[in-house]
Amino acid sequence: MRNWLLPEYIEDVLPAEAARMEHLRRQLLDLFAVHGYQFVIPPLLEYLESLITGVGHDLDLATFKVVDQLTGRLMGVRADTTPQAARIDAHMLNNQGVSRLCYAGSVLRTTPSGLAQTREPLQLGAELFGHAGVESDIEVQRLMVKALKLAGVTQLHLDFSHVGIFRHLVRQAGVNSELEQALYAALQSKDQAEVRNLTAGLDATTSAALCVLTELNGGADVLERAAQVLPATSAIAAALADLRQVAQQLQDLDVNVCFDLAELRGYHYHSGMVFAAYAQGYAGPLALGGRYDEVGSAFGRARPATGFSLDLRGLVTALPPAEIAQAIFAPYDHDPALTAKVDALRAEGQIVIQELPGHESHRNELQCDRQLVKQGDHWEVQAMPS
Amino acid sequence: MRNWLLPEYIEDVLPAEAARMEHLRRQLLDLFAVHGYQFVIPPLLEYLESLITGVGHDLDLATFKVVDQLTGRLMGVRADTTPQAARIDAHMLNNQGVSRLCYAGSVLRTTPSGLAQTREPLQLGAELFGHAGVESDIEVQRLMVKALKLAGVTQLHLDFSHVGIFRHLVRQAGVNSELEQALYAALQSKDQAEVRNLTAGLDATTSAALCVLTELNGGADVLERAAQVLPATSAIAAALADLRQVAQQLQDLDVNVCFDLAELRGYHYHSGMVFAAYAQGYAGPLALGGRYDEVGSAFGRARPATGFSLDLRGLVTALPPAEIAQAIFAPYDHDPALTAKVDALRAEGQIVIQELPGHESHRNELQCDRQLVKQGDHWEVQAMPS
Repeated sequence: MRNWLLPEYIEDVLPAEAARMEHLRRQLLDLFAVHGYQFVIPPLLEYLESLITGVGHDLDLATFKVVDQLTGRLMGVRADTTPQAARIDAHMLNNQGVSRLCYAGSVLRTTPSGLAQTREPLQLGAELFGHAGVESDIEVQRLMVKALKLAGVTQLHLDFSHVGIFRHLVRQAGVNSELEQALYAALQSKDQAEVRNLTAGLDATTSAALCVLTELNGGADVLERAAQVLPATSAIAAALADLRQVAQQLQDLDVNVCFDLAELRGYHYHSGMVFAAYAQGYAGPLALGGRYDEVGSAFGRARPATGFSLDLRGLVTALPPAEIAQAIFAPYDHDPALTAKVDALRAEGQIVIQELPGHESHRNELQCDRQLVKQGDHWEVQAMPS
Repeated sequence: MRNWLLPEYIEDVLPAEAARMEHLRRQLLDLFAVHGYQFVIPPLLEYLESLITGVGHDLDLATFKVVDQLTGRLMGVRADTTPQAARIDAHMLNNQGVSRLCYAGSVLRTTPSGLAQTREPLQLGAELFGHAGVESDIEVQRLMVKALKLAGVTQLHLDFSHVGIFRHLVRQAGVNSELEQALYAALQSKDQAEVRNLTAGLDATTSAALCVLTELNGGADVLERAAQVLPATSAIAAALADLRQVAQQLQDLDVNVCFDLAELRGYHYHSGMVFAAYAQGYAGPLALGGRYDEVGSAFGRARPATGFSLDLRGLVTALPPAEIAQAIFAPYDHDPALTAKVDALRAEGQIVIQELPGHESHRNELQCDRQLVKQGDHWEVQAMPS
């Protein structure tokens, strides 16, 4: 009998860490709120097609499926909240201008992912719908940086790419989807030799452009080099101009900004600029985001969309643990003066733990550093005798 | 294409209601915290046997099952957080004395339940482990009343029962489990004629006692009547004495306390006193609780346990909606003085929404009642022209 064993990559969060996560959850949601991002609570469960239409095969594989006993239809437990926010923007809010939404909740994944190597990330995110310009990308990027700094993360490193460049190149060249997939994989692993092999049958311009993508990573100078070596089409010029704006407008944030034009994370999902935040002490990205203008079309209303999300479980892995708040011990006594004193202390936010009869020998487990002691007819807080 | 349709009894929570739920969630968790209840985050997903062992068939039917792709074993999405808290107490914390735990998170149920008729209750609860006396029941009951009052619920009505009375009667009479199940159903529907039929083969004392249970509901005087008409065994006397203590010790709370000794809610799960909170404007119980000393034994360590939980979605159904906070509008302008002013307002907790270029015609959607206007070289908050 080992009923208390949890599945792999599934964990309890115990008091010290849970308090930290709850504190951070509130700080981040409050930060989103003062920036105008409205909190929504999408459901854990939806019909499968709502969850995975238009967002790629990866999300399908990551999604746990259950049968709806009421209809016999297949449902999924969400593996990502972003498409749900897009659905809410498209169908529930009906804004013509911008909607700013945020959320915080668990998602489930069939296999572990992310920093915490968990199958249950606690996903927090902020999404901006209805604005197609780079200004909205920059707004969510700045918000992401503020969120990570608020969490105590230092020496932030932001990595930018733009999936529109690769997409434009393969579409222009009429590449079939099989080859597109193979090129995508080769670029993701920065395998220039493989890109060269795969593009052998394409025109020389496209082939050269795809090969050079694997070299285009580094600081803002990468953008100048890209402008020289990539085809000067309007789509590519626009993508590079947007990335240049980012480099310029994040300068005041004291973060390290880099570009990697072969990075195609979320390619099946994203439609434009994509970005990831890294920091010392973390083995992988702390937060991910990008533009995904096409996702809303699965809900009948394509709207420009950009946003970012992070896993709070992953984020806390490299943060110092919270201090456990020490409590005040109160004896088991029905004296109304004690009850009044205890209520007053709790109203101030003090933790007061009242003893239960018969448990006098377990007091040391209660993490109390002070106690209530009767002095005449009133009760006083005193240090706990050690 | 209707991908935006949600399954039945599954709903989005949109901004106005989500803000209210989030506010209440924080208030209740803070209330639990100052009473010494430590926040934990048990996982959404566990092996099926961990979730349903020892807690009865109902929970099995309510639980969505998925296959663990890593092991091929069956897992369940939790339909109730209480057994998870018992598991954490039994195996993760290892306290010898009392553990006080609280939690807040979604659970999924295969069919709708509760006040909100939802398949995704947002369950908040507080559980106390390690103390067998009625004092701990009273502690959690008082906490429940404080929580509901904090939520703005008035004219509270608490209903108490004690499953130990029925269990004692059927065990003493050696009733088989089939008959026990039938009696349980008949008592739940207060069908005295059916109870009489079912108990025809039992001894006269047991039969009379089970029949009279259907009549034992009302105010505290019910307890005196029960003492006269039920067998005077020590188990029944102890149950009635505990209920009498409750009646007495909740007197100062300004709630209406009633008893219904045929109420056996959670009989397969609970082991002693059970209780439910009702209020005007709500079609069913707002919060439920009781003693469940046996649940921990599924995890190899039976510990006395009592607690309560509520569904935050159900609780807000009868509360007035939150006021949507009005925001301050800021133009799109890179003036560092504006950025500094916006940052300062946000640091005060003010919502400031900065416009994005090209969206001047959608300003009225932003719910701003004030705006930032440049006066000389600084920015001032002024009323929004209507």
